[in-house]
Amino acid sequence: MTVTINDIRTAARRLAPVVRRTPLLNDEFVDQALGARLFVKAECLQRYGAFKIRGAYNKIASLTPEARAPGVLAFSSGNHAVATAAAARMFGVPAVIVMPSDAPAAKRAQAEALGGEVVPYDRATEDREAICAAIAQARGLALVKPFDDADVIAGQGTVGLEIVEDLAVQGLKPDLVLACASGGGLAAGVAVAVKDAAPDALAFPVEPEGHDDLARSLAAGERLGNAPGIRSIADALLVDKPGVIPLAVASSLWARGLVVSDEEILDAMAQAFLRFRIIVEPGGAVALAAVLSGKIDVRGKVVAVVASGGNVDPAMFARALARLA
Amino acid sequence: MTVTINDIRTAARRLAPVVRRTPLLNDEFVDQALGARLFVKAECLQRYGAFKIRGAYNKIASLTPEARAPGVLAFSSGNHAVATAAAARMFGVPAVIVMPSDAPAAKRAQAEALGGEVVPYDRATEDREAICAAIAQARGLALVKPFDDADVIAGQGTVGLEIVEDLAVQGLKPDLVLACASGGGLAAGVAVAVKDAAPDALAFPVEPEGHDDLARSLAAGERLGNAPGIRSIADALLVDKPGVIPLAVASSLWARGLVVSDEEILDAMAQAFLRFRIIVEPGGAVALAAVLSGKIDVRGKVVAVVASGGNVDPAMFARALARLA
Repeated sequence: MTVTINDIRTAARRLAPVVRRTPLLNDEFVDQALGARLFVKAECLQRYGAFKIRGAYNKIASLTPEARAPGVLAFSSGNHAVATAAAARMFGVPAVIVMPSDAPAAKRAQAEALGGEVVPYDRATEDREAICAAIAQARGLALVKPFDDADVIAGQGTVGLEIVEDLAVQGLKPDLVLACASGGGLAAGVAVAVKDAAPDALAFPVEPEGHDDLARSLAAGERLGNAPGIRSIADALLVDKPGVIPLAVASSLWARGLVVSDEEILDAMAQAFLRFRIIVEPGGAVALAAVLSGKIDVRGKVVAVVASGGNVDPAMFARALARLA
Repeated sequence: MTVTINDIRTAARRLAPVVRRTPLLNDEFVDQALGARLFVKAECLQRYGAFKIRGAYNKIASLTPEARAPGVLAFSSGNHAVATAAAARMFGVPAVIVMPSDAPAAKRAQAEALGGEVVPYDRATEDREAICAAIAQARGLALVKPFDDADVIAGQGTVGLEIVEDLAVQGLKPDLVLACASGGGLAAGVAVAVKDAAPDALAFPVEPEGHDDLARSLAAGERLGNAPGIRSIADALLVDKPGVIPLAVASSLWARGLVVSDEEILDAMAQAFLRFRIIVEPGGAVALAAVLSGKIDVRGKVVAVVASGGNVDPAMFARALARLA
């Protein structure tokens, strides 16, 4: 199983009419301080506030009309839920979203406003996999996985393609590229796109402390999981273990995994506000956090980081702002 | 004295290599709630965080090389100060920025980091006009006014040109366009650009309560000032009276002036965070505030608002966020 640059180019053609080409932001004061050229891909400004629409839409586009017609199913409590509902509606097919019953009310309302049928389940007592399988089979729905799918990865990879293209307009190539990782779909797709254009570039997935399954898996050469329990404010990045397909696609492309703390994430959110004037959710800020907290040496380099989403609770954002007082 | 669409097109060509083409954002949930199609021109994502670089750069570009060589002078404590310093540096000429001694330290530091020479003066005891005139004459500097200048207005008008162009790509023309006004340079330039492309469109300058000099001037048919004293959180919009040239250019183009309260501004900043995921300073939020608070009937219309700047103190932004709790 692999994802090629051509898969990403195909995805880019499909996505052009439906996604925003988000800006690649820089700030000369930040560059002076870092001694580097830092570019922030502001996917927090993407439709529905996250990169997820790219993968969900590309997946549904890649289905045959027959496979697509009965509709799609996703399990998610967050950005992928909203993205799948939105993408299904663009194709005029039903979407069933299996969500934990304690999912944020706003996300559930958004998925429903987009025409999604939300099926709640109890995290404590019910088996999500079994629920999804039963619904999918009974209704002939195609599963839109959040990351463990080549078409989803190709869709997310268009973020990397746009980074490379927008740098090329400025006569630049990336030396270092960082993207957040939960299952690893975005980071894998971005690595494919970037390494195609700049084979010497180093690509890094970035995770929050306590959910560094991908970093440890890359170091160990085998797929490792996290201890159970949520330990990070980066609620978008809390998976059990890396995706099988992202690992297959990108483990040879990634330099290594980087890990940041909650404090570093909050600082990055605050700097994103101050310097780039963007709203980044905790999970979306880990790549910037890795650079600003000095996890890698960026001096003299052209560095691109993905700010992958901007769906953040006002109270959490206020917590980040308080660090600037 | 006038500003034509050709002046704005000339400015657009000059500006293309140096400014960001900021995104025109929309959100279908907002549109559903309003019964309209609302587009937000996110100039808060412009370089240096505000539209001001457009006018300052176009002004300096329009000077003869001889007039430009000794350098430029601006008086400002805010976004125009930073923009003028930045634009002067792009041309490799000196910039002197006359700033009140109680100006925000961050703005002074930014102007200096951009190579500007900051000359402080005491608001209470010194005459700014006299200081500027003396420095300009002694050193042969060209004055870059914040709004009362046709080349500055043409530069700001490129915001309107981009709105019109980006709507046209979607097969749309604006029915209503709103932009903030202090002296009126941005609102005048935007009106020229929009009325050229869509003569039936209505263009509105928007001001904060207590600084509604332009709205009252338009209603009265004569140039009126505000009572002295600061009465709004929109610190970027606190002038004594409208600019002479903005009025000459656009008084026949504007429908009428709209006025919003501090509370409406804070609500708009909060909604901009929640719905568009952008950071808008109080002065930059007045146009959105006018729409969201129902100052005009938008139902069934294509509406464009300029979010003109994003340089906001974290404490002030937190105050807006607190309204979402």
